[in-house]
Amino acid sequence: MPPPTPPTPPVRRGRPGRPGHDREAVLAAAVELFTRQGYAATSVDDLARALGVTKSAVYHHVGSKAELLALALDRALTGLEAAVDDTAAAAGSAYSRLHEVVRRSVEVLVAEQPAVTLLLRVHGNSEVERRALARRRGIDERLAGLVRAAAEEGSLRADLDPHLVSRLLFGTVNSLVEWYRPGGPVDAEQLADAVAAMCFDGLAERSDDR
Amino acid sequence: MPPPTPPTPPVRRGRPGRPGHDREAVLAAAVELFTRQGYAATSVDDLARALGVTKSAVYHHVGSKAELLALALDRALTGLEAAVDDTAAAAGSAYSRLHEVVRRSVEVLVAEQPAVTLLLRVHGNSEVERRALARRRGIDERLAGLVRAAAEEGSLRADLDPHLVSRLLFGTVNSLVEWYRPGGPVDAEQLADAVAAMCFDGLAERSDDR
Repeated sequence: MPPPTPPTPPVRRGRPGRPGHDREAVLAAAVELFTRQGYAATSVDDLARALGVTKSAVYHHVGSKAELLALALDRALTGLEAAVDDTAAAAGSAYSRLHEVVRRSVEVLVAEQPAVTLLLRVHGNSEVERRALARRRGIDERLAGLVRAAAEEGSLRADLDPHLVSRLLFGTVNSLVEWYRPGGPVDAEQLADAVAAMCFDGLAERSDDR
Repeated sequence: MPPPTPPTPPVRRGRPGRPGHDREAVLAAAVELFTRQGYAATSVDDLARALGVTKSAVYHHVGSKAELLALALDRALTGLEAAVDDTAAAAGSAYSRLHEVVRRSVEVLVAEQPAVTLLLRVHGNSEVERRALARRRGIDERLAGLVRAAAEEGSLRADLDPHLVSRLLFGTVNSLVEWYRPGGPVDAEQLADAVAAMCFDGLAERSDDR
């Protein structure tokens, strides 16, 4: 018979709070509500209700609704910026770096899907949103630069404008938030492979060596 | 000499109304507001304000807010269903029909962008929305069937699951509503060509015959 284990408080990241309702849980609930019903339409009351706690329990973890929005957008942006930074620092052709940043972006999107979904729906209605949009534009410009570099080295088909290619490619990556749900039959790596396969090599079966 | 023509009232579709604020203009304003701020958050008062008319002027053209939603969703769905119907009736391989339905879907999306954008944001919160989602599922199932047929005839690469291919392909088409704006440097036909080129043939430059 195993010895009785002494009661221990559950280990939590962030500031302590009601079990299961730490800062991380508050953030997750906020992202879900902001995405589903809009940031403006979501009150701290709604959030407390969704978590089954009091409003003051929410304020125990975060200073304001805007802080939650800033935290969520920062999480999505930090992941996407890291994908671009790491790839920019890598060796190899612009094509191989572009291929890799597409795969990495898909992986970030899967890992941080709720936060990325929220980021993609932000319209710049507040200072927090405008700062996030400016960072997002910075990422988009670096990705577009990589597409141009790949076109200039001659590794992308020449009949499509690089600006249009950039829109199509990252539009395809972003569109995953609309339907992909983690935990299904396709994992993040398979999804990244499939997106890269379609976008770079195409869906058509070919007799030549791929 | 032709006989004098009697004065005729201007020809308008729908019920007559204030010039420039006919049923079509009311519908366009409603789609814009529903998409931007959500159907639930939009009142007929908001709509009247956006059009610069009275609420009763709006009700002169439409019976209710729900009727406007139904009209807009029907417009998007009718266009997309026609693309699938026409392609299903066409001769040729499943691959050529799939290629064509992708191109046609892009064209519908450009022609009816506001209505398609609204359709893609509908979540089934009312009977009108649920009926629209059921029609959308019907379209998606027929598109997935065409992808399966193309895979079975051996014209799609064999390393990707047809269900995943269908999601990626039409996710890419749908993602155009997020960034494409008519009137720019790329017209509907060029956009359709570019989407089909990327998805079927891939972005990578190849030395072999495409």
